[in-house]
Amino acid sequence: MRLHLSTWPEVETYLADRQSIILPIGSTEQHSPCGLIGTDAITAETIAGEVGTRTGTLVGPTIPVGMAHHHMAFPGSMTLRPSTLIALIRDYVVSLSSHGFRSVLFINGHGGNIPSVQSAFYEVYETLRVQQGDAAPALRLALCNWFTLPSVGALAKELYGDHEGWHATPSEVAVTWAAYPDHIKTAPLEPLDPVDPRFYDSRDFRARFPDGRMGSDPSLAKPEHGHRFIDAVSTEIVARHGAFLDGA
Amino acid sequence: MRLHLSTWPEVETYLADRQSIILPIGSTEQHSPCGLIGTDAITAETIAGEVGTRTGTLVGPTIPVGMAHHHMAFPGSMTLRPSTLIALIRDYVVSLSSHGFRSVLFINGHGGNIPSVQSAFYEVYETLRVQQGDAAPALRLALCNWFTLPSVGALAKELYGDHEGWHATPSEVAVTWAAYPDHIKTAPLEPLDPVDPRFYDSRDFRARFPDGRMGSDPSLAKPEHGHRFIDAVSTEIVARHGAFLDGA
Amino acid sequence: MRLHLSTWPEVETYLADRQSIILPIGSTEQHSPCGLIGTDAITAETIAGEVGTRTGTLVGPTIPVGMAHHHMAFPGSMTLRPSTLIALIRDYVVSLSSHGFRSVLFINGHGGNIPSVQSAFYEVYETLRVQQGDAAPALRLALCNWFTLPSVGALAKELYGDHEGWHATPSEVAVTWAAYPDHIKTAPLEPLDPVDPRFYDSRDFRARFPDGRMGSDPSLAKPEHGHRFIDAVSTEIVARHGAFLDGA
Amino acid sequence: MRLHLSTWPEVETYLADRQSIILPIGSTEQHSPCGLIGTDAITAETIAGEVGTRTGTLVGPTIPVGMAHHHMAFPGSMTLRPSTLIALIRDYVVSLSSHGFRSVLFINGHGGNIPSVQSAFYEVYETLRVQQGDAAPALRLALCNWFTLPSVGALAKELYGDHEGWHATPSEVAVTWAAYPDHIKTAPLEPLDPVDPRFYDSRDFRARFPDGRMGSDPSLAKPEHGHRFIDAVSTEIVARHGAFLDGA
Amino acid sequence: MRLHLSTWPEVETYLADRQSIILPIGSTEQHSPCGLIGTDAITAETIAGEVGTRTGTLVGPTIPVGMAHHHMAFPGSMTLRPSTLIALIRDYVVSLSSHGFRSVLFINGHGGNIPSVQSAFYEVYETLRVQQGDAAPALRLALCNWFTLPSVGALAKELYGDHEGWHATPSEVAVTWAAYPDHIKTAPLEPLDPVDPRFYDSRDFRARFPDGRMGSDPSLAKPEHGHRFIDAVSTEIVARHGAFLDGA
Amino acid sequence: MRLHLSTWPEVETYLADRQSIILPIGSTEQHSPCGLIGTDAITAETIAGEVGTRTGTLVGPTIPVGMAHHHMAFPGSMTLRPSTLIALIRDYVVSLSSHGFRSVLFINGHGGNIPSVQSAFYEVYETLRVQQGDAAPALRLALCNWFTLPSVGALAKELYGDHEGWHATPSEVAVTWAAYPDHIKTAPLEPLDPVDPRFYDSRDFRARFPDGRMGSDPSLAKPEHGHRFIDAVSTEIVARHGAFLDGA
Repeated sequence: MRLHLSTWPEVETYLADRQSIILPIGSTEQHSPCGLIGTDAITAETIAGEVGTRTGTLVGPTIPVGMAHHHMAFPGSMTLRPSTLIALIRDYVVSLSSHGFRSVLFINGHGGNIPSVQSAFYEVYETLRVQQGDAAPALRLALCNWFTLPSVGALAKELYGDHEGWHATPSEVAVTWAAYPDHIKTAPLEPLDPVDPRFYDSRDFRARFPDGRMGSDPSLAKPEHGHRFIDAVSTEIVARHGAFLDGA
Repeated sequence: MRLHLSTWPEVETYLADRQSIILPIGSTEQHSPCGLIGTDAITAETIAGEVGTRTGTLVGPTIPVGMAHHHMAFPGSMTLRPSTLIALIRDYVVSLSSHGFRSVLFINGHGGNIPSVQSAFYEVYETLRVQQGDAAPALRLALCNWFTLPSVGALAKELYGDHEGWHATPSEVAVTWAAYPDHIKTAPLEPLDPVDPRFYDSRDFRARFPDGRMGSDPSLAKPEHGHRFIDAVSTEIVARHGAFLDGA
Repeated sequence: MRLHLSTWPEVETYLADRQSIILPIGSTEQHSPCGLIGTDAITAETIAGEVGTRTGTLVGPTIPVGMAHHHMAFPGSMTLRPSTLIALIRDYVVSLSSHGFRSVLFINGHGGNIPSVQSAFYEVYETLRVQQGDAAPALRLALCNWFTLPSVGALAKELYGDHEGWHATPSEVAVTWAAYPDHIKTAPLEPLDPVDPRFYDSRDFRARFPDGRMGSDPSLAKPEHGHRFIDAVSTEIVARHGAFLDGA
Repeated sequence: MRLHLSTWPEVETYLADRQSIILPIGSTEQHSPCGLIGTDAITAETIAGEVGTRTGTLVGPTIPVGMAHHHMAFPGSMTLRPSTLIALIRDYVVSLSSHGFRSVLFINGHGGNIPSVQSAFYEVYETLRVQQGDAAPALRLALCNWFTLPSVGALAKELYGDHEGWHATPSEVAVTWAAYPDHIKTAPLEPLDPVDPRFYDSRDFRARFPDGRMGSDPSLAKPEHGHRFIDAVSTEIVARHGAFLDGA
Repeated sequence: MRLHLSTWPEVETYLADRQSIILPIGSTEQHSPCGLIGTDAITAETIAGEVGTRTGTLVGPTIPVGMAHHHMAFPGSMTLRPSTLIALIRDYVVSLSSHGFRSVLFINGHGGNIPSVQSAFYEVYETLRVQQGDAAPALRLALCNWFTLPSVGALAKELYGDHEGWHATPSEVAVTWAAYPDHIKTAPLEPLDPVDPRFYDSRDFRARFPDGRMGSDPSLAKPEHGHRFIDAVSTEIVARHGAFLDGA
Repeated sequence: MRLHLSTWPEVETYLADRQSIILPIGSTEQHSPCGLIGTDAITAETIAGEVGTRTGTLVGPTIPVGMAHHHMAFPGSMTLRPSTLIALIRDYVVSLSSHGFRSVLFINGHGGNIPSVQSAFYEVYETLRVQQGDAAPALRLALCNWFTLPSVGALAKELYGDHEGWHATPSEVAVTWAAYPDHIKTAPLEPLDPVDPRFYDSRDFRARFPDGRMGSDPSLAKPEHGHRFIDAVSTEIVARHGAFLDGA
């Protein structure tokens, strides 16, 4: 069930029984010469949709632009400042809370979002504590970064060996190609050298990773891999967060 | 050309020739018992996509949640505070500007967004003026509210007579049904009484408009109407903003 | 009754009977070589005073500096960022609300303020909703832009024909000359060319409108016109907003 | 020379010769049962006007509402949060600086404004330092609290002995009566007890000072005293700040 | 009793009896070639500790970095913007208030902090008033600037005559040397000229006071002076604020 | 070398050779009935001091209060909102950058700070990028959470087996007892049950962990363990970050 494709009476009916919701969060940033700029939003939305279907949980709107400062030296990348992203998440959660939602699971497709999302959770909790004290709603906010789950690592190892890397990975690219098979891109890539995945600001990032990849070979991705990742990761998320989504 | 379905080298190539981009902005809010909660985002995205195709302009990510305080008494509605939406738009525009984009057209599906978008434009302009003086980029930021265009009013009058109303209108619902023909909803509606479209806060809104409609009969919408609206409004937007998007 | 010329017991007495207040809001910005920089504040204050007198409504302090980014390329113009103006209006409204004021009418003299004022209304409403829920006061916030009222347009057409324009209009200048007959300014003006009233940032504004006028001929203004505008517009505002100010 | 009664070419001419401006800042707050709510704005504006006339300095718009939290338990009082007042002053100063103003003298009528004004000065200085480094304009921001000047204390002692007090003082009330002789208020006042002028929040303030006075007897004020205060304090301000206003 | 050296049950026990706490606030800024950069934090912490011991009051963590814009032209100085310092103090006070602390005494070692601390007090009071109305806790927030107390002036006069000055004073340096006798610094100093202690921004400060002193001769300081200052000022603070700390 | 015990000429000399600095960051929060409220600040400061000594790196002031919302149900805990902590870190870094520091290593004693510190790094980077573009300084900001280092885990396993837990761990308590041997606390503790270290807000935290421990037995700590942890972790930090601190 997708919030944007529902009516308010349908949401009212849903809330009578369940108080959980899934929010996909992605990013709009370069993913190498052959990965889509919307990769992180597409993967988060796709996986969130599958988890929502399997668990009967409502899925809210995808946050398409996240915290991607470090990619800003590549054309087309967009970023929110962390402070803006924190304010946005706060408003999302507060809006949902006022209707009675109590459990919110963010399914996240981008590592750069993690500090902002976690900061936002505490900004919300602390603001509610100060404003409402014991009358504050008992919110449960959780973050699931699909790309760090063991099932993803295992499958990526099987399919790509040492060429998964840290950004513009074949696993995430495969998920986007499963979702958008008409938008498979190819581009000649330089041979992979071993990389140190640490970096500082956006200039430093581009100096270290000139075409945007971080030790990955996205050309290994295939759409059929994407379906396998979607299935595996959804299974793992349901196992980990199913009780949370059921409100138990 | 959609930003999220492009790669960074494709954007680089685009920017060598054109410095314009379209950003759809919608809302996540009740649209009566038979309109979708995502109506305003769906309409903005659909029309922006059509305008982008006709003019060869890049279309960026849709802003799915806008300023919808007045709908918050209906389950499922979400809102940003104006201050958050202003910060978000600022970050979007600043991100795009740093890649060389100079003309940004927001195609908007929700009246409640207008003050925040306009405020954001001036927040950006004034911030750049103070920080960079004459070195500031010559940005051109424009807002197009598709639902107020004369072509929409004319077609709505033809199709719906006096039943267009001000919210959950058959015209916007028709556009969503054209876009999502598998999600047509029906619900029994009370007879329409004449309404005064003014209101104050969210409680006042619900007291005046108990099922969320404002003088509209969304049940008159048909998917084929939606296609006619999309065509008519895209034609008008190209006529009005085509030179802007061409950078002339 | 003016707030700044009252004592607190007088306000207490007023509040026992009425919970409405008028707040004039203007701007400090160029108005061509012969219009006063304080034009928008002077007109808003003058008209608000007249409406207050006719309806027995308390009139609060005039906001003298508004959102005037686009005039900043002319010496003497001052601007608040939209975010600052929103914070200011929030504080004004919250202050008044805590004494029991429930209906606040902003009489506005400057188009550039409109998005900020409207954004501020929703910032207040949404903040109160989140903080206080159903315990929030039932505020009614309204905006009246005197220069867009039909009575103004009609009288301007009669007096100035096609030379009213969009900024530094003879109608607003006439009101200031009625209020400050000792400060009538004259300056040689270039002949009027037809103008397109659209613009982007402050540099763009000055490039398009080199002396600050937007298609207007302020030299046509006369103090006696000002008195006619004040009378006409006050009559119209009382007709439109009298019930609001009475609390009905 | 008043900014709001000037045109932009007049300001341009002024700036060719002088880069100083005076900004009056007041408050909208209770001043006992017989002092005007606008007292602090009226006194600041009156004295600023006199200093402007004597020194030929431009006088900008009066800030009518300041930081008056501690008076909020009395009807009609209005306050900005310190953070809002700081943002407002920043925007005023930055606006003026962009036209070439370099010396800004705030003439202040309210003790509660002092921390916010001083904080704003440093907020401006530090923001400019970080953003512009050595390219930042060499701003000189100064604050003059007229009511703390020795000439005021001396004259108040002469006229009112031990009944000057700390708030709703006869000296400030006298200045307002000189400015607005048609708005002299009278009210029966309780006998004066010795007071400790310290207080905490607004509830504490009202508990300690039930009618709003702090050890003062405003009924001693006379309009002719007001003229003497205006003359004495203007003379002292010119002596202290004349070189500053001349740019020397 | 120091908060950082206590356990939560010890604080719980303390609160059953007393609701007061002392917070030292200093700065990290140049103090001439022979004064420590941490001078203001060291003095505040030392004096707060002594007052805490004498009165049995809990002493919280020292705020080590304050508002020191004007010292930023000297290496090693650090500053918070006033807006950041206000937010920090708000969070400190709100945290303590939620445990039941009601009287908070800031013992301050740096003049530049005063406006921010005072602004923060009103930001807290006004925020609580708006959010909680009559349910807001009755907080008592007080500021004690140790270096302005009469006992300090008297002893400095006795020890240093006209060489106390306004910054990097021998009195404050003596206190740091009493606290850190192993870190006594010496440096050749230029002869003292009479100074005007006024200044504008950080560039102006350094131009006026090239080695960082403001009319002071810190080389006169001796550790044994420091002990005399600590004793004298603690005695005076206990006399002034003892009842406040006792909650009476 | 400690910043607060240095003079500005000493810092100037240091900067001629090295542009790195260490900033300890802790928290003020409950650490069970026998751990100090200042534990996280004490450990960070102690370890940072040791690393500074071994590498000859300047050590700046300790941030004593961090993000500790989840501990706010225990008396004595203090917290900054994430947004405040981000602003603070931004100001610290910007201050240091303006003197020429380029490499800043935060040595952190508290898990709850991680998202805010990381968010702050990107807030700084993105703000500098937008304001200064290619002229922005090439800052390198790094975070080291000492308690997650392998050497700590190994030693804790050796000393405490399965009783290390996640909060109020014997390892961190041991470091505080090494630093403050006069402040060793004892308290009777309930037997340890296995715990799930996940939690939501502060009420939820206390409900799950009634005395503040998370699966730890701090009574196992001994001061001599603390010295071993300090040595081991400092060795590891030097190995990991020595080149960073040397500027290589």
